[in-house]
Amino acid sequence: MNIDMIRAAADRAAGVIRRTPLLSSPFLDDIAGRRVFVKPECLQHTGSFKARGAWSALSAMEPEVRKAGVMAYSSGNHAQGMAWAAAQHGAPCVILMPSDAPALKRANTAALGAEVVLYDRTTESREEIGAAIANERGLTLVKPYDEPQVIAGQGTVGLEIAEQAREAGIDHADVLVCCGGGGLTSGIALAVEAEAPGLRVRPVEPEGFDDVARSQASGTIQRNAQMGGSICDAIVTPQPGDLTFPIIQRLCGPGLAVTDDEALYAVAQAFLRLKVVAEPGGAVALAAALLRKDQIEDEAVICTISGGNVDPAMFTEALARHGDKT
Amino acid sequence: MNIDMIRAAADRAAGVIRRTPLLSSPFLDDIAGRRVFVKPECLQHTGSFKARGAWSALSAMEPEVRKAGVMAYSSGNHAQGMAWAAAQHGAPCVILMPSDAPALKRANTAALGAEVVLYDRTTESREEIGAAIANERGLTLVKPYDEPQVIAGQGTVGLEIAEQAREAGIDHADVLVCCGGGGLTSGIALAVEAEAPGLRVRPVEPEGFDDVARSQASGTIQRNAQMGGSICDAIVTPQPGDLTFPIIQRLCGPGLAVTDDEALYAVAQAFLRLKVVAEPGGAVALAAALLRKDQIEDEAVICTISGGNVDPAMFTEALARHGDKT
Repeated sequence: MNIDMIRAAADRAAGVIRRTPLLSSPFLDDIAGRRVFVKPECLQHTGSFKARGAWSALSAMEPEVRKAGVMAYSSGNHAQGMAWAAAQHGAPCVILMPSDAPALKRANTAALGAEVVLYDRTTESREEIGAAIANERGLTLVKPYDEPQVIAGQGTVGLEIAEQAREAGIDHADVLVCCGGGGLTSGIALAVEAEAPGLRVRPVEPEGFDDVARSQASGTIQRNAQMGGSICDAIVTPQPGDLTFPIIQRLCGPGLAVTDDEALYAVAQAFLRLKVVAEPGGAVALAAALLRKDQIEDEAVICTISGGNVDPAMFTEALARHGDKT
Repeated sequence: MNIDMIRAAADRAAGVIRRTPLLSSPFLDDIAGRRVFVKPECLQHTGSFKARGAWSALSAMEPEVRKAGVMAYSSGNHAQGMAWAAAQHGAPCVILMPSDAPALKRANTAALGAEVVLYDRTTESREEIGAAIANERGLTLVKPYDEPQVIAGQGTVGLEIAEQAREAGIDHADVLVCCGGGGLTSGIALAVEAEAPGLRVRPVEPEGFDDVARSQASGTIQRNAQMGGSICDAIVTPQPGDLTFPIIQRLCGPGLAVTDDEALYAVAQAFLRLKVVAEPGGAVALAAALLRKDQIEDEAVICTISGGNVDPAMFTEALARHGDKT
């Protein structure tokens, strides 16, 4: 992994991937006690930054390999990103999903053009089923984060942040990144190391699922004790990636963690002050920017909103709890 | 009014006004039966395009005039745009609001740095009070739409649409614009006349408040029969402007109208598919793009989302009614 791969991914993404704006609001600055800038990747194709990594992976493949088709395991944002990128390339795409995945996610992934194959996660191994299908059809598996071209694609967010920070006159800032397996975090860290060395990336996770922060602190990969029970499902992964963790360890500042309720508070603030739709897992970095002011040093903070694929019921809950915090 | 004033407004806005992206979703294309592109001005400073016109007006003033201060009548988006633009210029700003304006709008306008002066709209004349304050303090009144530099500022949306349409390969399209007094509509119409003549602007209004469409049809300025009773408050005005109407009459295609419930449907679709927050009045153009397909001819349609300043309760209502329409 290096900056040249990220720059090449940006070249391949030109004219397709959206350059999301850098947003701000004086009301958020007041809450945080410093300038707050927000990179809303919820506005990206498919509603999350995952479209960048998927596009990067597909566009980097040899044409014959791509033509044979791709596969992913995911019930969430990576599935939608892969389905979209494959459809744009005219490549077959199989998404392996647990049979209890929400109907809406299945429907969306299928509507974007992918073939959804269901498995019973209590009795079947997705790796075995996936390997069988991939071998039979000659599909290439694209992992959600521990994959060089995926990290390169997510890193294009960092190139944009570096350029937009320069335009906004920001030389020094903490860059808070919503962190699951670390693809977005490590990609942005590599990009700003090269393009904006005054920016320091820091991962943000849900409390109780802070495997990355604990891995940073201990110096070795740590696992989460559990996988379920957070509303921030988009960023709950078992452990940091073998490729992503060394990059995070080398380049990132200490991790931060927020509660589910704090994530919902940030969802409501993004609605009130930025007019964008954030999912809870996509709002943890904004939550940390607003509510962990004592753990941030610089006069400015930049945070990602990594996705906006939230159900109406959960969004309504966020507004009911925190929509009056003006 | 001419294109040079719009270009000059764009020059004055460089580095301050946000270039909002052009969004799209295959799900919206399916509903509309054609390609749908959305210009989300809800992402502009203060949550609506009004920041553009206010910035244009303030930045065009002679420094001594600006330093003396500005005034506006508004309880809504123009008030917030003016308060923001004045604060950025270090100019005093007085906003005259009816004493029964929502507390949130008063608080927001004041928080943006303006002095809010209340009047009783049942017993007092805002024109008399405004004239008295303006004379006493030497303030300059900036009208919400019938003001050349305001129209020029709103027209910068049209310059961006022309450029983004070109980048997206769109030669011909109807451009649907949420229309109140016609400042945004006439500004965009002037800009695309010069920069993208294959685009045709059409105003969209709430049913029952279609003064612009009726004025277009009759050739003379028509008034609305009533001023209250629509949830699309941001775009309900008594009649088209003396400056804006002749431009609309010369350049625009026939107007469209949608119901309040159709506006809420578009609010929900903007949430589900674009991840942006639209207010009902800011969603009427998207509603027409999705639900008036027989009244649109081109293979592509571009629509503005003009603002996102919606209360949590109204937004929740939109999701409750239409959030399951996937």
